[in-house]
Amino acid sequence: MRYGEKAIKTARLELWDNPCSEKDYEINISFSEFTCLCPRSGYPDFATIAIKYVPDRKIVELKSLKLYLNSFRNMRISHEEATNKIYSELEKKLKPRFLEVAGDFNPRGNVKTVIKVSSDSD
Amino acid sequence: MRYGEKAIKTARLELWDNPCSEKDYEINISFSEFTCLCPRSGYPDFATIAIKYVPDRKIVELKSLKLYLNSFRNMRISHEEATNKIYSELEKKLKPRFLEVAGDFNPRGNVKTVIKVSSDSD
Amino acid sequence: MRYGEKAIKTARLELWDNPCSEKDYEINISFSEFTCLCPRSGYPDFATIAIKYVPDRKIVELKSLKLYLNSFRNMRISHEEATNKIYSELEKKLKPRFLEVAGDFNPRGNVKTVIKVSSDSD
Amino acid sequence: MRYGEKAIKTARLELWDNPCSEKDYEINISFSEFTCLCPRSGYPDFATIAIKYVPDRKIVELKSLKLYLNSFRNMRISHEEATNKIYSELEKKLKPRFLEVAGDFNPRGNVKTVIKVSSDSD
Amino acid sequence: MRYGEKAIKTARLELWDNPCSEKDYEINISFSEFTCLCPRSGYPDFATIAIKYVPDRKIVELKSLKLYLNSFRNMRISHEEATNKIYSELEKKLKPRFLEVAGDFNPRGNVKTVIKVSSDSD
Amino acid sequence: MRYGEKAIKTARLELWDNPCSEKDYEINISFSEFTCLCPRSGYPDFATIAIKYVPDRKIVELKSLKLYLNSFRNMRISHEEATNKIYSELEKKLKPRFLEVAGDFNPRGNVKTVIKVSSDSD
Amino acid sequence: MRYGEKAIKTARLELWDNPCSEKDYEINISFSEFTCLCPRSGYPDFATIAIKYVPDRKIVELKSLKLYLNSFRNMRISHEEATNKIYSELEKKLKPRFLEVAGDFNPRGNVKTVIKVSSDSD
Amino acid sequence: MRYGEKAIKTARLELWDNPCSEKDYEINISFSEFTCLCPRSGYPDFATIAIKYVPDRKIVELKSLKLYLNSFRNMRISHEEATNKIYSELEKKLKPRFLEVAGDFNPRGNVKTVIKVSSDSD
Amino acid sequence: MRYGEKAIKTARLELWDNPCSEKDYEINISFSEFTCLCPRSGYPDFATIAIKYVPDRKIVELKSLKLYLNSFRNMRISHEEATNKIYSELEKKLKPRFLEVAGDFNPRGNVKTVIKVSSDSD
Amino acid sequence: MRYGEKAIKTARLELWDNPCSEKDYEINISFSEFTCLCPRSGYPDFATIAIKYVPDRKIVELKSLKLYLNSFRNMRISHEEATNKIYSELEKKLKPRFLEVAGDFNPRGNVKTVIKVSSDSD
Repeated sequence: MRYGEKAIKTARLELWDNPCSEKDYEINISFSEFTCLCPRSGYPDFATIAIKYVPDRKIVELKSLKLYLNSFRNMRISHEEATNKIYSELEKKLKPRFLEVAGDFNPRGNVKTVIKVSSDSD
Repeated sequence: MRYGEKAIKTARLELWDNPCSEKDYEINISFSEFTCLCPRSGYPDFATIAIKYVPDRKIVELKSLKLYLNSFRNMRISHEEATNKIYSELEKKLKPRFLEVAGDFNPRGNVKTVIKVSSDSD
Repeated sequence: MRYGEKAIKTARLELWDNPCSEKDYEINISFSEFTCLCPRSGYPDFATIAIKYVPDRKIVELKSLKLYLNSFRNMRISHEEATNKIYSELEKKLKPRFLEVAGDFNPRGNVKTVIKVSSDSD
Repeated sequence: MRYGEKAIKTARLELWDNPCSEKDYEINISFSEFTCLCPRSGYPDFATIAIKYVPDRKIVELKSLKLYLNSFRNMRISHEEATNKIYSELEKKLKPRFLEVAGDFNPRGNVKTVIKVSSDSD
Repeated sequence: MRYGEKAIKTARLELWDNPCSEKDYEINISFSEFTCLCPRSGYPDFATIAIKYVPDRKIVELKSLKLYLNSFRNMRISHEEATNKIYSELEKKLKPRFLEVAGDFNPRGNVKTVIKVSSDSD
Repeated sequence: MRYGEKAIKTARLELWDNPCSEKDYEINISFSEFTCLCPRSGYPDFATIAIKYVPDRKIVELKSLKLYLNSFRNMRISHEEATNKIYSELEKKLKPRFLEVAGDFNPRGNVKTVIKVSSDSD
Repeated sequence: MRYGEKAIKTARLELWDNPCSEKDYEINISFSEFTCLCPRSGYPDFATIAIKYVPDRKIVELKSLKLYLNSFRNMRISHEEATNKIYSELEKKLKPRFLEVAGDFNPRGNVKTVIKVSSDSD
Repeated sequence: MRYGEKAIKTARLELWDNPCSEKDYEINISFSEFTCLCPRSGYPDFATIAIKYVPDRKIVELKSLKLYLNSFRNMRISHEEATNKIYSELEKKLKPRFLEVAGDFNPRGNVKTVIKVSSDSD
Repeated sequence: MRYGEKAIKTARLELWDNPCSEKDYEINISFSEFTCLCPRSGYPDFATIAIKYVPDRKIVELKSLKLYLNSFRNMRISHEEATNKIYSELEKKLKPRFLEVAGDFNPRGNVKTVIKVSSDSD
Repeated sequence: MRYGEKAIKTARLELWDNPCSEKDYEINISFSEFTCLCPRSGYPDFATIAIKYVPDRKIVELKSLKLYLNSFRNMRISHEEATNKIYSELEKKLKPRFLEVAGDFNPRGNVKTVIKVSSDSD
């Protein structure tokens, strides 16, 4: 197993202190190389994951986030569950003032799907 | 008759339980290969159908949705009726918290038409 | 005179019953081949006409709308008047719940003009 | 059966005399609403058909060409065969000085295919 | 009749001496507001006319060219004939070292046509 | 001095009666060939000027507006002042119900600047 | 193991008879969901694979091609080797009259790479 | 050391009087050549910095702003800190009526980040 | 008169030694802020000037080239003459191995013109 | 000094054996984050460097190439020299069957420059 494979296997979100926590500001992150497996067929799915948040006391370190997203590669999981799972994990760890996660999936059977979860609708 | 033709002929929307029903989130689906027949002339019409909804207890399974949309292929139906019919069917089956259906039709006689039906205007 | 020329000469908006009048929904129409004559010089002007409306009891039949818009071809009329005239005609005939007409004209003397008339500003 | 459906059912290419046959010139035609059925599954396929030719004594009338292309709607035929069949039909009827037909098909199973047949490679 | 209508009615190509005739160079002109009438139906057609030439002793004055192209507005003429007629007129008047005329017409019946005539194929 | 240079030198905004003053509607004008001189260095600056207004009793005639904007060509004036000056002149002459002027200037020293003045912020 | 995972594991290119082998024509295929692992680090790589060929006696069936390309998902292989391996496999199986394979890889370390292998350079 | 390097080394924001301070208006500035060093690795980072503000009594002179942004070139600073630092400096010097700063950074490890700080969220 | 105005008034092309004259290589320069005056009316014209050359013993310094192109601002000159004049000046001064100059002018009277002069057609 | 800064300081092109040297194939590399200093003023310059080559016995390792290109960051060098220097270094080390290097630089003083060096013109 190569070092990258190990890093992905043991990936967990790393948190840093928010350097400017006295002020609301927005962090937008997008990752266009998300892939997982369809829970029914096992065929690969592909998506861009977009994350928008207003940090409170913590921000997420970007490399650990990438490794966390890489760790879905061999997971069997639906579009809806994957997007909600990423949302929940970030929500639990960051406790941000605002959070939105969108999963923009490649067409399957000529149907394109985008899932959007936001703390605004809580 | 091939198996695909049979699948389209007998198509009906299949519902799955919403895996995260305790929270509002948005599902956006777009299908660019919608075709039906003009009710007056019988000539083919083409459209992209875009669906946006906030699920309540059920979500729609994507393959069954594609087959349902494929089933308009030999139906004689106007732009306005097709869009409203898809809206009504989804509304009745999913009972979603929010629903919007847009039919974006190719120009006919150099006139381009987009029909938008939304639960916001109820 | 060819049949198309006759059809344009005698064009008048044809109305159909709204198949779903119990519900508000939006109809967007755009026609990129509008042409008329400048009232001052007689030189041709060109525009895209975009119409957005929420129908009440009637919808406009698309071919009759195209012929109506074609009938401006040899009319001498300014950008402002043409856009307002189309707005008024549709308003009078359709009595829609909402109406907006935009005339997006090609540049003249390197100046590009867009005129927008909406029932929101009544 | 509506008049459009009849027109498509009885469609055959109509030829007109080339108004300028003493000189080589190029005619490019593209039709973005081609659809047929997959020969294996019966599911619908969609394509843009692009035709380029240098006419000899005949040119093809455009409405009859559209009806001819519409007539593939319920035919079960592969991408390769459909493109070659259109090429052969035009070649036989028009006997043009040059002919190229390209079928640019929508992705199936995430694979996009373009087939190009040209008299240059004879 | 306004002065612009008169100017179009009496339009004829005006020639100027080529200021640099000792050297080959290319002049490209494009006019996106060409319109004429379909010879069969009388319905309006729209096109962009693109002209490329290498002048010999004469160049064409641009305003007279625009008026000449405007003069097709009420003429019943097919795509092929219009493009070839413009080619012939320029060829006869300018006697250029090279000439190409392309007529890129708006779709009719969902079919888009481009006609290209060039002195290279003489 | 040519007639165009004279026309620009003596340019002043010409007003026409609003043909539809009983109703609010929007006029959008954009002019992509604005140029003036940097007040510090004298080097040329370039911009697109976009004007949006809701007319009251008067509308501005387009050719006189173009000539007015051309008249900045040899004026030494900053981005901020040019945009505010055009706003003030239109405001004073048209007394419109709403007015917005934006000056979108080409980069200088790799810095791109857009100035926006609107009656909404009065 | 799901049926899709099995299908990918046992994937091998399936060949069909060329329905028009008496004539040269071009088949272009593109697959935007190629992924493999970096041979050094084990981190995932992503690419679009584009294949262009002129078939001789055989054509490749598209679903088997997709499965074959999916089978690189857990393979550790460099950009150059992956592209050349796909080229060789197709060359050996299809014995086409012409073949070109391009691997257009996502940037790594901000460097974007495209590898192109063609039978023209043999 | 060249004069440009000196100018960057000694860069400080220069303020000018707002020529139209009696009225709110918007100034948008964007600078696509921002670069600094990653605080962890020392590798270069690249971003576009977009600034939007409503000036009060002062506006920022553009050349001094460019030099100030150039001065980050050899600074080790994170995405979040760089964006907040530019915001704070402008806020302190300009005391504007409104201020927003966005840092749109090139992807690192395939992750793209945009940081947005605005006085609206104070 | 400001220093920029003086610099433009006295502009002349400055030549530098080609640092790599033993090898052919291509230099492409484009300047999108060219403006001059129409020789007939005196109204301003705008163009992008694109220059491509293979240097021999000299290359042109870019700032002096910009000032030279700025110096057309108040010159009355046609599209054809301006393009040929720039070509001749560069040809005379640089004696390059290859030279091409294209003037891509903004539409006038809705007619867009591009003039291209190249040493290939000598 | 951080590890990235050290890596850049000591960067040298690393060569790997060409895994498929028996066959010509093309490697295209593009790097959009090139920056150096203007030799005259010391102000930063920015470019995209595009490299195309047909390898002989060696290929260049991508990370070492990135570090090599990063090493120009504090070098004072003109557009022409930077592009030719990269060409020469690759030519000397790789001895490729074909090589082309293009430097596409951001505008300076509103003038955009692209330098292209190719082994075809030897």
